[in-house]
Amino acid sequence: MKLPVAVLVSGSGSNLQSIIDRIEQGVLDAEIKLVVSNRAGVFGIERAKRHNLPYKVMLHTDYRSREAFDQAMVDAIVEAGVGDNGLVAMAGFMRIVTSVFLRAFEGRVMNIHPALVPSFPGVNGQADAADYGVKIAGCTVHFVDEQMDHGPVVIQAAVPCQAGEDGNVLAPRILKLEHRVYPQAIQWYAEDRLRIAGRHVELKVAGRPCARQPKADIEPETYALVWPPLEEGF
Amino acid sequence: MKLPVAVLVSGSGSNLQSIIDRIEQGVLDAEIKLVVSNRAGVFGIERAKRHNLPYKVMLHTDYRSREAFDQAMVDAIVEAGVGDNGLVAMAGFMRIVTSVFLRAFEGRVMNIHPALVPSFPGVNGQADAADYGVKIAGCTVHFVDEQMDHGPVVIQAAVPCQAGEDGNVLAPRILKLEHRVYPQAIQWYAEDRLRIAGRHVELKVAGRPCARQPKADIEPETYALVWPPLEEGF
Repeated sequence: MKLPVAVLVSGSGSNLQSIIDRIEQGVLDAEIKLVVSNRAGVFGIERAKRHNLPYKVMLHTDYRSREAFDQAMVDAIVEAGVGDNGLVAMAGFMRIVTSVFLRAFEGRVMNIHPALVPSFPGVNGQADAADYGVKIAGCTVHFVDEQMDHGPVVIQAAVPCQAGEDGNVLAPRILKLEHRVYPQAIQWYAEDRLRIAGRHVELKVAGRPCARQPKADIEPETYALVWPPLEEGF
Repeated sequence: MKLPVAVLVSGSGSNLQSIIDRIEQGVLDAEIKLVVSNRAGVFGIERAKRHNLPYKVMLHTDYRSREAFDQAMVDAIVEAGVGDNGLVAMAGFMRIVTSVFLRAFEGRVMNIHPALVPSFPGVNGQADAADYGVKIAGCTVHFVDEQMDHGPVVIQAAVPCQAGEDGNVLAPRILKLEHRVYPQAIQWYAEDRLRIAGRHVELKVAGRPCARQPKADIEPETYALVWPPLEEGF
């Protein structure tokens, strides 16, 4: 039985693509029931079309309130078959959701943010990190609560940041890891191995072989620390 | 010519010990000219005695203002021989310094903080990280400015954090890395390889061989990401 998933996008949807790819490779036991975009003409929708996935463009500007928009999304997602056993995965979805949405999918909404939270929440995580002058940047998959980029953390990946690098240099380095950790987090959810206790997300051990760790080398592109460790296939 | 260093402590001084050890091993080209503690009876002072290092207990409560205390520290440090070519290393020094201190040693005061700044500044970095539920924690060596745990970053180290671990479990894992990155940062300073440009600290490449990277293994104790990479001896 595959995990029913709805993916919310606002832009190019490269994290949507990484989820699609892992599903098509047979390592992620999920089925995308619906792709929702709150913007028209974005490439995320194009990706859904190319892979014959159901999609819906829902412009938040068409709704009178955040709550009305969220309720409409809830209805569309439930109708698409993502009910009590499904997951909602935000993938570059540029809107805060309200309690209307979170109550409908309690403990079942994930997001990925391109920073090591609680550092650098918001829309410019990579550039903010580079501007701050961190030596280690990264990304975070977390369950969603009503604060931005704030809910319980599932997995994080750390990558080097060099002096003088800006957000444009840093972003693709982080994105490479995003494309590995998000499908992994969703697979753990599909295997029912995640337990939320307060702010802590526990991963049940399953004895899966770990993926080969990034090579230790002087090149920043080859370094990373991922925790919990990625498993084979991710 | 060895780098003259003053070390400021408020407690057990384990980072002071790591600096002493690397000096005695001949890998850190520095000489500790003075250890200052703002608290009496701390083990940091005991370490100074054991290694025949000059030390001074200066109780901030004996001074009328932060500025007066800072000026007294400046006088003692300069008198001990840490002048324009020296470095002041805070090692668990639990006080904010004022511009009186920072102007006297501009760009020459370092601190180590047990978190990946800007996350978790303040006195409980490790416990705050564990309570937040991060999967990756760490430590930061930075130049000091007038905000707490805020100045330009020299080096950072990232380590895993497991669900359910508290600050007491996490602290020694981070401390192991602190004891490697702080002497390394001071050695880079001694070699005149650090350049501060705004919030960015650039490390001049010197072609030194890198230390062996931590082994990739399932045990959290064996994982770490350090950037810039540690060089041989550290």
